[in-house]
Amino acid sequence: MISPTPPGTRDVLPDEMRELRAISERLRGVFEDAGYGEVWTPTMEYEEVLARGDERAAGAGYRVFDDQGGVLVLRSDMTIPIARLVATRYPDAAGPIRLCYFAHSYRAVERGSGHSREFLQAGVELIGAPAPEGDAEVIALVIAALSEAGLKRHRIGVGDGSLYRILLASFDVPEAERLPLLEALSRRDLVGLEARVERLGLPAPARELLVELPTLRGGPEVLDRADGPVAGAVENLRACHELLAEWGIADRVIFDLGLVRELGYYTGAVFEVYDPAVGFAIGGGGRYDDLVARFGRALPACGVALDLERVHMAGTEEERLDERR
Amino acid sequence: MISPTPPGTRDVLPDEMRELRAISERLRGVFEDAGYGEVWTPTMEYEEVLARGDERAAGAGYRVFDDQGGVLVLRSDMTIPIARLVATRYPDAAGPIRLCYFAHSYRAVERGSGHSREFLQAGVELIGAPAPEGDAEVIALVIAALSEAGLKRHRIGVGDGSLYRILLASFDVPEAERLPLLEALSRRDLVGLEARVERLGLPAPARELLVELPTLRGGPEVLDRADGPVAGAVENLRACHELLAEWGIADRVIFDLGLVRELGYYTGAVFEVYDPAVGFAIGGGGRYDDLVARFGRALPACGVALDLERVHMAGTEEERLDERR
Repeated sequence: MISPTPPGTRDVLPDEMRELRAISERLRGVFEDAGYGEVWTPTMEYEEVLARGDERAAGAGYRVFDDQGGVLVLRSDMTIPIARLVATRYPDAAGPIRLCYFAHSYRAVERGSGHSREFLQAGVELIGAPAPEGDAEVIALVIAALSEAGLKRHRIGVGDGSLYRILLASFDVPEAERLPLLEALSRRDLVGLEARVERLGLPAPARELLVELPTLRGGPEVLDRADGPVAGAVENLRACHELLAEWGIADRVIFDLGLVRELGYYTGAVFEVYDPAVGFAIGGGGRYDDLVARFGRALPACGVALDLERVHMAGTEEERLDERR
Repeated sequence: MISPTPPGTRDVLPDEMRELRAISERLRGVFEDAGYGEVWTPTMEYEEVLARGDERAAGAGYRVFDDQGGVLVLRSDMTIPIARLVATRYPDAAGPIRLCYFAHSYRAVERGSGHSREFLQAGVELIGAPAPEGDAEVIALVIAALSEAGLKRHRIGVGDGSLYRILLASFDVPEAERLPLLEALSRRDLVGLEARVERLGLPAPARELLVELPTLRGGPEVLDRADGPVAGAVENLRACHELLAEWGIADRVIFDLGLVRELGYYTGAVFEVYDPAVGFAIGGGGRYDDLVARFGRALPACGVALDLERVHMAGTEEERLDERR
């Protein structure tokens, strides 16, 4: 008799579960010590409410029908529900609101893609703190939490989701061309990106900047190479770097000017969390200064979500590498 | 701007979340020390798979449609998924399998009923251990875990889901009458039950037993008053009591011969967990010796699920009562 679970979902047995719990508890300890209080939001939300945060995020989820025919969706991330929660449950709170979560989210990814449809996230949201201090706080917190969870090699890639948009606007690239370019960028398809840029027929300096900016990756020195129309936006990354250098953790950060996150609500710095022991990102996030306002309170915010199962895999791989030495 | 959550769901803010986590961690500690390993199963399951466990349980859940038009449901409890997990992931394991879980389940309850549609359960499943030892182990474990979580007044009501069915069969009550009688019993509608029994036109001793058995509630002495056709089934409860008395916790148990749990998979002892500080059950469970076989492995089993938010409320109420003294 075969009793399958749906594609992209799985059972977690005790040995793995114990390790996932241990990681969760260490992360939670660091988050709570830093003043981030854990919240829970419903697994199901009204589709029209989530769509206020991001049309695509609402569409990416599983649809659920309630007994009145209302359309609910399973949350596809925790950031939009927490933006809703902050606007409705903390309508008057002064000063930054620091929240964290440990919860599953759901995405109706393509069958056979190997992606999970149910994934366990640990994350933080810092609401009411502007850039660059807010960005630096979140970066530092995630680095510290992953160290506490046992990782040693983790790094955070930091870019700015607005950089490429600023370039496209300043070179008057036609609107219809912008989305395909941004999509190629978010897929890290630099060959396809270059081919598309060539076809735009721009003067050489503009063409070169559009092709080269996404390849700028490294220490703070890469920030000096991004001038022209993006010099202002890069200034925030530089200020962020100064704070992280003061705190002695700047070596954990890789500036990555080609970094673009998929979700549409990011307005500034974007983050991707890596561990060289594994070939995939273990988390990501960014600044979303317009999102909470869509639910009724104008507050700058940023956050990071870690994929706990991937953090666990990174820890296991790091141990293997250490043993081989 | 109003951004509601769906009826029967809610946000949990940090103060409450911290207390729910503390309760969870204490329960998990007791479960793990007793050899119960935590598992996770997917929130969504194929409807046809869950329906093997219990038609009604599958129907009680929210339906979700996947990208291929497959019908998934949100799990409405963890017992059926764990029965599936045991049959598929432990096809050869010898000896009892001890599992626990901390997870949300979902029921599409009626709007306005005040019931949660998303509820956080902590539970144990003991698979491969027959009655009465298995029943007694689970009862003792739940009592110990709730004590560790800070409760002092908790009790477990213990009945046997088969008792009333045996009576109805032995008195040749027509099949069509049995379900309404069992439903009145599971609603604890003793007035409605008596009216229905009167209409059956049975001889006085049978009529009296059908009306009185559900009112038998108390210490082990109530077991002596249930004789006749149910004497054999009551023997298991007596054996269970002897074990609990040996372990010094028999005073925590209330025998309740009218106890019938709603779910269709219970085959023997049934449990309801109470705390006199609050007016609702904080958990329940029972023996389900046929369920795992429906997924391919014939193993006796029993388990209990606690409603964590209700356990938390009971703890808060107990504290209030203690302060008043």
